[in-house]
Amino acid sequence: MTKKYQVVGIGNAMVDVLTHAEDSFLAENGVEKGIMQLIDMERAVELYSHMGPGQQISGGSGANTIAGIAGLGGRAAYVGKVKDDQLGEIFAHDMRALGAAYETPLMDAQSALETGRCMIIVTPDGERSMNTYLGVSEFLTPEDIDETMMADAEWIYLEGYRFDGPDSHAAFAKAIAACKGAGGKVSITLSDPFCVERHRDAFRSVIKSDVDLLFCNRAEMLSMYETDDFDAALAMAASEVEIVACTDSDNGAHILAGGERYHALAVPTDIVDATGAGDLFAGAFLWGLTNGHDVETCGKMGCVAASEVISHIGARAETNLLSLFEKHGLL
Amino acid sequence: MTKKYQVVGIGNAMVDVLTHAEDSFLAENGVEKGIMQLIDMERAVELYSHMGPGQQISGGSGANTIAGIAGLGGRAAYVGKVKDDQLGEIFAHDMRALGAAYETPLMDAQSALETGRCMIIVTPDGERSMNTYLGVSEFLTPEDIDETMMADAEWIYLEGYRFDGPDSHAAFAKAIAACKGAGGKVSITLSDPFCVERHRDAFRSVIKSDVDLLFCNRAEMLSMYETDDFDAALAMAASEVEIVACTDSDNGAHILAGGERYHALAVPTDIVDATGAGDLFAGAFLWGLTNGHDVETCGKMGCVAASEVISHIGARAETNLLSLFEKHGLL
Repeated sequence: MTKKYQVVGIGNAMVDVLTHAEDSFLAENGVEKGIMQLIDMERAVELYSHMGPGQQISGGSGANTIAGIAGLGGRAAYVGKVKDDQLGEIFAHDMRALGAAYETPLMDAQSALETGRCMIIVTPDGERSMNTYLGVSEFLTPEDIDETMMADAEWIYLEGYRFDGPDSHAAFAKAIAACKGAGGKVSITLSDPFCVERHRDAFRSVIKSDVDLLFCNRAEMLSMYETDDFDAALAMAASEVEIVACTDSDNGAHILAGGERYHALAVPTDIVDATGAGDLFAGAFLWGLTNGHDVETCGKMGCVAASEVISHIGARAETNLLSLFEKHGLL
Repeated sequence: MTKKYQVVGIGNAMVDVLTHAEDSFLAENGVEKGIMQLIDMERAVELYSHMGPGQQISGGSGANTIAGIAGLGGRAAYVGKVKDDQLGEIFAHDMRALGAAYETPLMDAQSALETGRCMIIVTPDGERSMNTYLGVSEFLTPEDIDETMMADAEWIYLEGYRFDGPDSHAAFAKAIAACKGAGGKVSITLSDPFCVERHRDAFRSVIKSDVDLLFCNRAEMLSMYETDDFDAALAMAASEVEIVACTDSDNGAHILAGGERYHALAVPTDIVDATGAGDLFAGAFLWGLTNGHDVETCGKMGCVAASEVISHIGARAETNLLSLFEKHGLL
């Protein structure tokens, strides 16, 4: 039976504000390199006042993943909170323009909070340092979770960053129950090593009980299982979930499933902006999986998609990924 | 005596929404290729709903010119109207982040209008077709013109598009009087051939009486003097203003001054997005002129800057233009 959606993602809806700066800017402004830092409105205003001119592009980790799946022609939907403001309008437009369903109720225009913004500083080495003002995205509640949509999903995709926020765990629980109750499967991304620090117990618990497919990178995997032994951490994860897909920077990705381990090589490219590499890896992997490809091929598709997105500014694909998959002999 | 500003620009403040589409999209949506069309809010909403995902980048023709001058290290200021909304905040931030003064009073948040938006559709040939919702930018009034700022300018730069709008001519007249009264000079750009159609008499009048430096392209020049004879039109313009700087696409630019005519060659590049070519030409030219370079060199600087801006998405320079001028032996 074909479900309405191949993948429904739940995450923090964001508009990215991308700017270029030297490494010295990070030091002078107290920005930690290469990770995601949560900031409040006051800090957001102050940091923005020091930043150079920016480009505003729809972002949000899980939203980038869903945008990737929709851009590949997949049947996808997204759940995440924006406000009835200009940035919220841009976010919603871009999601729907790719063909993804997006029906999350808007936060009222009277709210003191605004649509979430991620100020991304790209250094000359292509590394991105993210400063996130969550805004209204933090206030996604169980009421925003449409159980029919979750039941209509072959897979749901949970963004780890969404473990921050007052009602986030309850919202995820509702989505998981509705999806699994209708025979769907659950994937999750750990998002960021510091996010793992903040929510390790909650992650461990949901992974053991509900997750079928775990996305993470090396640093997140090590933090998750509190070890320096990468292979041991991978084995531990593989004992808990059906599929593990762990990215490893320029060493590609490791896929563990059915007692086997596969290594997908990274696709070399000039790194212009690393933003979105993990997001697009997950999008391509899930698209492959729900189109009947084996997990090794899915891993390779993920690496091709990640390579595309880091070759330009912005966290969403600009090239036709299907043609790239064909070029790499994956279709 | 050194004035506080080398150049003060007055124009329609805009945020650009850039998207890629095939030529068929233009036909299906009634978008005229390669020009600027004014659209109302209703049309803006409808067109946006058909457009693909976009990138939001500060724009506005005159603002791009001033951004170019400020980015080169020039002393520059900008006057143009935005609202106290998110896009207005982005516009103001990006202008100030480049070091340009920007103090135009904001339109109140209660206004039914929003900050102006230009929806730019870039076709595979790199040509841009612009659909402008003027929003509050149309309502710049004489009260927004700070006479002290105009008197502090070596040059003011008037954007032709600003001839649309109820109080625009009065605002320009006030700026010209304050600038000239303090010994400053006046430059203008004709902006667009259809803009010339709408305001030919007003352009002719201000050019004859007040303009010292005229920027335009070939199509605008021909429309201005209602002729098919390009050389005759150039000669006519040169008889009315001190300096004529007329761009001519891949044929570079023609500069007429002091009874001489110079030809600056275009700098070949792969055209990714033609948006901003004329704006950056004018910015580089004015920067050169106010730094004591001869008009021929200014024309060459303009061609180098235009070449940079069409090699990427967005209408503002992404490379250090000073290094490019050096590379081309202009400094």
